[in-house]
Amino acid sequence: RKVDVSPKALTPYLGTNTVSWMDVQGLGSETILKQIGDIFKLHPLLLEDVVNVPQRPKVEDYNEQLMIIVQMVFSHPDEQGFHSEQVGFVLGKSYLLTFQEEEIEDCFDIVRERIRTNQGKVRQAGTDYLTYLLLDSIIDGYFPVLEKYGDRIETLEDQLVLRPNPSYLEEIYTVRRELLSLRRAIWPLRNVTNLLVREDTTLINPENKIYFRDCYDHAIQLLDIVETYRELASSLMDVYLSSMSNKMNEVMQLLTVISTIFIPLTFVAGVYGMNFEHMPELHGRWSYFITLGGMAVIAGGLIYFFWRRGWFEPFYATKKQESS
Amino acid sequence: RKVDVSPKALTPYLGTNTVSWMDVQGLGSETILKQIGDIFKLHPLLLEDVVNVPQRPKVEDYNEQLMIIVQMVFSHPDEQGFHSEQVGFVLGKSYLLTFQEEEIEDCFDIVRERIRTNQGKVRQAGTDYLTYLLLDSIIDGYFPVLEKYGDRIETLEDQLVLRPNPSYLEEIYTVRRELLSLRRAIWPLRNVTNLLVREDTTLINPENKIYFRDCYDHAIQLLDIVETYRELASSLMDVYLSSMSNKMNEVMQLLTVISTIFIPLTFVAGVYGMNFEHMPELHGRWSYFITLGGMAVIAGGLIYFFWRRGWFEPFYATKKQESS
Amino acid sequence: RKVDVSPKALTPYLGTNTVSWMDVQGLGSETILKQIGDIFKLHPLLLEDVVNVPQRPKVEDYNEQLMIIVQMVFSHPDEQGFHSEQVGFVLGKSYLLTFQEEEIEDCFDIVRERIRTNQGKVRQAGTDYLTYLLLDSIIDGYFPVLEKYGDRIETLEDQLVLRPNPSYLEEIYTVRRELLSLRRAIWPLRNVTNLLVREDTTLINPENKIYFRDCYDHAIQLLDIVETYRELASSLMDVYLSSMSNKMNEVMQLLTVISTIFIPLTFVAGVYGMNFEHMPELHGRWSYFITLGGMAVIAGGLIYFFWRRGWFEPFYATKKQESS
Amino acid sequence: RKVDVSPKALTPYLGTNTVSWMDVQGLGSETILKQIGDIFKLHPLLLEDVVNVPQRPKVEDYNEQLMIIVQMVFSHPDEQGFHSEQVGFVLGKSYLLTFQEEEIEDCFDIVRERIRTNQGKVRQAGTDYLTYLLLDSIIDGYFPVLEKYGDRIETLEDQLVLRPNPSYLEEIYTVRRELLSLRRAIWPLRNVTNLLVREDTTLINPENKIYFRDCYDHAIQLLDIVETYRELASSLMDVYLSSMSNKMNEVMQLLTVISTIFIPLTFVAGVYGMNFEHMPELHGRWSYFITLGGMAVIAGGLIYFFWRRGWFEPFYATKKQESS
Amino acid sequence: RKVDVSPKALTPYLGTNTVSWMDVQGLGSETILKQIGDIFKLHPLLLEDVVNVPQRPKVEDYNEQLMIIVQMVFSHPDEQGFHSEQVGFVLGKSYLLTFQEEEIEDCFDIVRERIRTNQGKVRQAGTDYLTYLLLDSIIDGYFPVLEKYGDRIETLEDQLVLRPNPSYLEEIYTVRRELLSLRRAIWPLRNVTNLLVREDTTLINPENKIYFRDCYDHAIQLLDIVETYRELASSLMDVYLSSMSNKMNEVMQLLTVISTIFIPLTFVAGVYGMNFEHMPELHGRWSYFITLGGMAVIAGGLIYFFWRRGWFEPFYATKKQESS
Repeated sequence: RKVDVSPKALTPYLGTNTVSWMDVQGLGSETILKQIGDIFKLHPLLLEDVVNVPQRPKVEDYNEQLMIIVQMVFSHPDEQGFHSEQVGFVLGKSYLLTFQEEEIEDCFDIVRERIRTNQGKVRQAGTDYLTYLLLDSIIDGYFPVLEKYGDRIETLEDQLVLRPNPSYLEEIYTVRRELLSLRRAIWPLRNVTNLLVREDTTLINPENKIYFRDCYDHAIQLLDIVETYRELASSLMDVYLSSMSNKMNEVMQLLTVISTIFIPLTFVAGVYGMNFEHMPELHGRWSYFITLGGMAVIAGGLIYFFWRRGWFEPFYATKKQESS
Repeated sequence: RKVDVSPKALTPYLGTNTVSWMDVQGLGSETILKQIGDIFKLHPLLLEDVVNVPQRPKVEDYNEQLMIIVQMVFSHPDEQGFHSEQVGFVLGKSYLLTFQEEEIEDCFDIVRERIRTNQGKVRQAGTDYLTYLLLDSIIDGYFPVLEKYGDRIETLEDQLVLRPNPSYLEEIYTVRRELLSLRRAIWPLRNVTNLLVREDTTLINPENKIYFRDCYDHAIQLLDIVETYRELASSLMDVYLSSMSNKMNEVMQLLTVISTIFIPLTFVAGVYGMNFEHMPELHGRWSYFITLGGMAVIAGGLIYFFWRRGWFEPFYATKKQESS
Repeated sequence: RKVDVSPKALTPYLGTNTVSWMDVQGLGSETILKQIGDIFKLHPLLLEDVVNVPQRPKVEDYNEQLMIIVQMVFSHPDEQGFHSEQVGFVLGKSYLLTFQEEEIEDCFDIVRERIRTNQGKVRQAGTDYLTYLLLDSIIDGYFPVLEKYGDRIETLEDQLVLRPNPSYLEEIYTVRRELLSLRRAIWPLRNVTNLLVREDTTLINPENKIYFRDCYDHAIQLLDIVETYRELASSLMDVYLSSMSNKMNEVMQLLTVISTIFIPLTFVAGVYGMNFEHMPELHGRWSYFITLGGMAVIAGGLIYFFWRRGWFEPFYATKKQESS
Repeated sequence: RKVDVSPKALTPYLGTNTVSWMDVQGLGSETILKQIGDIFKLHPLLLEDVVNVPQRPKVEDYNEQLMIIVQMVFSHPDEQGFHSEQVGFVLGKSYLLTFQEEEIEDCFDIVRERIRTNQGKVRQAGTDYLTYLLLDSIIDGYFPVLEKYGDRIETLEDQLVLRPNPSYLEEIYTVRRELLSLRRAIWPLRNVTNLLVREDTTLINPENKIYFRDCYDHAIQLLDIVETYRELASSLMDVYLSSMSNKMNEVMQLLTVISTIFIPLTFVAGVYGMNFEHMPELHGRWSYFITLGGMAVIAGGLIYFFWRRGWFEPFYATKKQESS
Repeated sequence: RKVDVSPKALTPYLGTNTVSWMDVQGLGSETILKQIGDIFKLHPLLLEDVVNVPQRPKVEDYNEQLMIIVQMVFSHPDEQGFHSEQVGFVLGKSYLLTFQEEEIEDCFDIVRERIRTNQGKVRQAGTDYLTYLLLDSIIDGYFPVLEKYGDRIETLEDQLVLRPNPSYLEEIYTVRRELLSLRRAIWPLRNVTNLLVREDTTLINPENKIYFRDCYDHAIQLLDIVETYRELASSLMDVYLSSMSNKMNEVMQLLTVISTIFIPLTFVAGVYGMNFEHMPELHGRWSYFITLGGMAVIAGGLIYFFWRRGWFEPFYATKKQESS
C-alpha cells in the first residue's frame, strides 16, 4: 500500500548503498517540491523542467543526476481517445525520483508488484535497472493505446466503403489529430532511449545498457506503428472523398435517368396539348394510342441505353450490400 | 525609466569588468549606428547584418564578438495575426548590444525588472547570462502567439463541420501562411540555440551552457508545435473540401428527390392534357380521381424508395445541429 | 526428412567444430524454449525478442551470439495478399538456431536440399555462410510477393481507365495497406543486412561479408520496388478520382444536353397550350406546322452547338472502347 | 567604357602581382575560348564545363584554379518571368576570368563602378575579394526576382478568393514551374557558397572567408524564401479548387432553388390542365384563385425553407463583394 | 567492324601492359560466361550480379576487379517511352569487360570511333579512362531521353488548359510511371559515380578521378532534371483535375441558365393552360400579348442577372480560344 511520506524522511538513505525510489504524484505543492530540490540538490533548471508541463521528452545529464522526461499514456477500454501525463525521472546514484503530473492511475503497478514480491533481480540491481523497468512499463503502455487506433481505422474503413456518411468526417479528423499528438510523444522517445544507450554517464551501468537498447527497439516499433496508422488515416480521407463522390455520381445518375426519360415524353405530351385549330393528328381514331406507343418506345430505348452503359448497377450493388 | 544616452557615454565602461547592456531601438539613424560600430570595433559585415532587415536568424563568431540574430514575435489579444521584428545581439566580453528593428514594445521588460530589482543572479553573472535571459524571454514570447493559432484552428474545425462556408477558405489560407512565416522564424532558432551550446567561444562560460541548452529545448518544442499546427491546418483544408462536397451532395439530393417525384407526375398530367379527340380515359366518371390516386401511389413509392436509401437523413441531421 | 528432436540432443555438439542447425517451428511450448535458452545460454532479453511476435527486424550482438530477427513472407498463387511470419536467428560459433513463428511452410527448402545433396560449399563453410543462405532465401522470397502487387497495380490501372467503378476503391486501399506493411518489413531489412556487413563481430568471417553485402544489395532493391509500387498505388487513387469525375462529367453533359434541348421546346408547346381567347397564331392554316418547324430548327441549332463543343465525344469514345 | 581586348593582351600581366579581371561575354567563338584556355592553362574539362550550358552550379578545384559555376537571374519590371544565364568564374592567383553565357546585361555594373571609382578595398584586395563582390552581386540579384513572385502570389490569392476564374489556373501552374526552376538554381548555390567557406585552397585568403560566409547566409535566405513561395503557390491550387467548388455549389443551389420551387407548381398547373370530363374543381367560382393562392403558399413555404438554411447567402455575399 | 572472338583468344593479353576491352553482348550463353569467369578469375557473386538482370546500379570492389553495374537507356525519336538495358563493367588492371543485357544497339559507338581513329588520349590511357569514356557516354544517353519527357509534359500542359479531355489522364499516368522508373535508374547512378571518385582502389588512377567527378556532376544534373519533371508531371494532374472541374462548372452553368430562364416561363404557360371555368385573364383582348410581354421581361431580367455575374464568360472565352 502507498504511504505518503515527507521528503525529509528520505535523507538518511542518501549516500548509503541502498536504492530508494520516491514517487511524487501531482505537481501542485511548491513547498514540497522545493524541499525535494534542496534535499537532492537539484539544479533549478532541472526542477523547472520537471514541474512545468508539458515538456518535450528528453534526457539531460546534470553530472550527479540524470533527468529523463517522458509522456505516459493510457486509455480506458470504454472511452475514446487517450489520456497522457508527463513523468519526470531523476536518476541519482542511490535514489530514483519520479514526478508524475497527476495523482491518477499510472502504469507502474507491475513494477511495484515486482518489488513487493521480490521478483526478478530488481532488488539486487541498482537505480538504472529500476529506471529501465519503469521506462519499459511506460513504453509498453503505448501499445494498447495504439492498437485501439488500429481498430478504429479498420472499423472506419469498413463503414466508409459500405455507407459513406458525413459524420465520419469528424471522426477521421479526430483520429488524425490524436495520432499526431501520440506521434509528438513517441518521436522524442526514440531519442531519449537512444541517448540512454549512448550516454557516457556513470549512473548507468554499461552492463545494463542492453536493457535500454531493448527500450529503444520498442520505441522504434512504436514509431513504426504510429507512422503506419497516420498513413492509413490519411488515405482514409481519400477513401471518404471518393465514397462521397461515388454517392454523388449515383444521385446524379438517378436524376439524369429520370429526367432524360421523362423530359422528351413530356415534350411530346405538350405538343399534343397545344390548341392550334389545324392539327391533323388530333383527329385520327388511333392517334392517342399511337402516341402512347411511341412514348413507350422512346422510354424503352432510353432505358435500354442506360442499362447497357451500366447506370443501373450502383442501385443493384447497394441493395445487395444492404441485404448482406 | 528609459534614458536616451549617446553611444559615446559608454566608452568609459569598455575594458572594465562591469557588464553594460545597450539596447538600440529602431535602426533609422545611420550616424549613431556608425558611431557604435566605431566604438565597439564592429566588423562592417556584422553591422550590415544587424541593420539590414530581415536577416535569417543566425549566430556568427567574430572573435571579439558573437553576433546573434533572431526574430521576436508578439501579438495583441484583440488582434489577429502577429507582429515580428528582428533583434540583433552583439555579445562582447564586458558589454551586450541589442539592436531592435522598431521602437515599439518588446518582451524584455521582465528582464529589465529583474535587473532593476536585483532579482536572481543577473547582476552577478556575465554578459552570457544576460544574453540567455533576453533570448529566453524572446523564445517564451513565441508560445502565446502559437497558442492563439491552436485556438483558431480548433474554432475553425468546429465551425467547418457544423456549417461549412466559403468565407472560412480565406481564413484557413491565412492561418497556413502565417504559420509558414512563424516556422521560418523558428526553424533557424533551433540552429542558433544549438550553436550557442556547441560553439567553442570564450564569450560563453561553459558553466552557463546549460542555460542555452534550456533555450534549445524550448526552440525544439516550438518547432514541434508549429509543425503540428501546420499539419492540422492542412488537414483543415481537407475537412473544408469534404464539408463543401457534403453540402453539394445534400443540394443535389434535394434537387433529385424533387425532380424525380414530380417529373413523372407532370408527365402523367401532360398526357391527359393532350387534345386528342379519342381518349377514352377522359370520359370516365372516376378517371380524374383514379389518375390523382395513381399519382399519389407513384409519389408515395418514390418517397419510400428515397427514405429507405437514407436520402432524407442529411435534412434531419442538419436540423438537429441547428437546434442544438 | 524432418526429425523432431529434443533440444538436449544437441548438447554433445556444442563446443565442437561441427556446425549444427536447429530449426524451431512454432513458438508455443514455453518449456522447450526455456530448455533451449538454458542449453545455449541465451540472454533472457534475447529469448524474449525471439518469442514475442511481432518484433521489428533487427540485429543484436550478445557477445557469444548474434541475434537476427526478420520477417519472412510468402504468398500462394491463387490467393490475394501475403502471409508473413517472424524468423529469429541465433548465430553462435558452432551452431545456428532459427525460430519460426509458425509450423507452416517456409522458404528454407532449397537450403535444406543443398545441405542434403552437399551442393556448393555449405557443408565446408561455417555458421555465418549458412546464415547467409537462409537470409538470402528469405529475401528472395519477397520478390515474387512484390511482383504480384506490380501485376495487381497494372491490372487495376487498365480497368480504372476503361471502366471506373466504385468497387475498385476498396481494392486500391487494400493494395496500399498491404504495401505499407510490406514496407514495414523491408525497411529494417536494409538496416539488418547493412549491420551484418559492418558489424565488428568474430561470428562472421570477414571473407564472408561479401555475401552479406549481396543480401544488402537485394534488400535495397526490394526497398526500391516497394517504394515505386507505393507511388504507383497512390497515383492510382488520383486516376480513380479523375475517372469518377470524368464519368460524372459525362452524366452531367447528357442531362444538360437533354434538358437544354427539350426545356425550350416544352416551353413553346406550353405557350400554345394556353387557353387565351385571343391568340391569333392558333387559327392560321399552317401555324401548327410552322411551330413544329421552328422547334426542329431550335433543336437542330442546339444539337449543332453541342456537337461543335464536342459534348457528344465521350459517348462515341466509350462505345468504341466497349466494342474493342 | 568597355574595351574589347584580345585574350593575348593579358599575357604580360600573368605571373605579376596585379589582379586582372577578364569578362568573356557570349560563348560563341570557339577559337577565342581555345586561346584563353591555352594562355591560362585551363584543364579541358574545366573549359567544357564553362562553355557547355546549362551546367549545375558547382565549385571545382583544379589546383592552380578554382572554377565556380552559378546561374545569374534578372527580370524586367514590365515583364513576367525571369531571365537566367550561366556565369563561370575561373579564379587564379593573379587573375579572375568570368564567362557569361550571353552578351546581354549583367548585374556586375555596381562592381565595375566600384573598381572605376576606387571605392572600398576592391583595388587593394586580391582576386578572392573580387570574386566575392561579383558572387554577392549575383546572389543579390535573386532577391528582386523572388519578390516579384511574392507579389504575384499575393495578387493571385486576392483574385482567387474574390472572383475565381479558370484563367488563373494557367498562371498558378506557371508560377509553380518558374519557382521550381528558380529553386533548381538556388539549391546548388547553397552548396557552392558553403564549399567556398570550407574549401581548403590557397586561392582564397582565410581572412576573406568571412565574406563567403556572408554569401552563404544570403543563399540560405534565398532558399528559405523560394521554399516558402513554393508552399504558398501549392496551397493556392487548393484555394483555387475550393473556390471553383464554391462557385459550383452556388450554381447548383440556384438551380435547385428554382427547380424545387417551380416544379411542384408546374405540376399543379398541369393537373388542372388535364382534359378529364369530370373534374369538379374546375367549375368552382373561386377555384382558380384558390389554386393560385395555394401555389403562392407552396412557393412561400419553400422560399422560407431555403432562406432558413442559408441558401440565399452566397448571392448576398457576392453582391456585397462586387460593390465593395 | 565487330569481330566475334572466343573468350580464350584474350588470354595472351592478360598480364601484359596492353589494355583489352571485351564487350559481351547478350547474356544468353552460360558456357561462354563460365569460360570468361574462369579466364578472368571472376568471383561467383560478381558473375551472378552481371548476369542476373535487373540489378540495382552499384559499384563493388573485388580487390583484383572493380564491378560497376548501370542501366543504359535510349529512345527512338519516333517512339514513345524508352528502352533500358543493364550494362556491367568489370574493370581489371589490363582489361575491361562489359556485359550488355541485349545484342541491340548501344551508345558506345562514339567511343569505338575514338579508339579506331585514335582520337584523344584513349589509346595512351589505362582501363580507368576507357571506363570513364563508356560511363560518360551512357550518362549522356539519358539527356535526350529526359528531354523527350520535358517536351511531352509541355505539350500536355498546353493541351490540358486549352481542351481538357479524359484521354490525357492515361498519358499523365504513363509519363509519371516512366519518370519513376527513370528515377530508379538515375538515383543509384549518383551513388555509383560518387563511389568511383571516393573509392580507395588501385584500379583507378588518382589523376583520372577528375573525370569521374565529371560523371558525378552529370548524374546530379540528371537527378535534378528527373525530379523537376516528376514535380511538373504531378502538378499536371492538378491542372487536369482543375480543368475537368472547370468544364463541369461550365456544363452546370449552362444547365442552370437554361433551366432558370425557362422553368418559370413554362410555369406561367402552365397556369394559363389550366381549364378552370372562371379565369378572368383569359378573356381580355390583349391578355395573350401582355403575358408574352411579361415572359419576355422575366427572361430578360434573368439573362441580365446571369450576364452581370459573368456566367456567359466561359462560352465567350472558349470560343475565342477555338478561333485562335
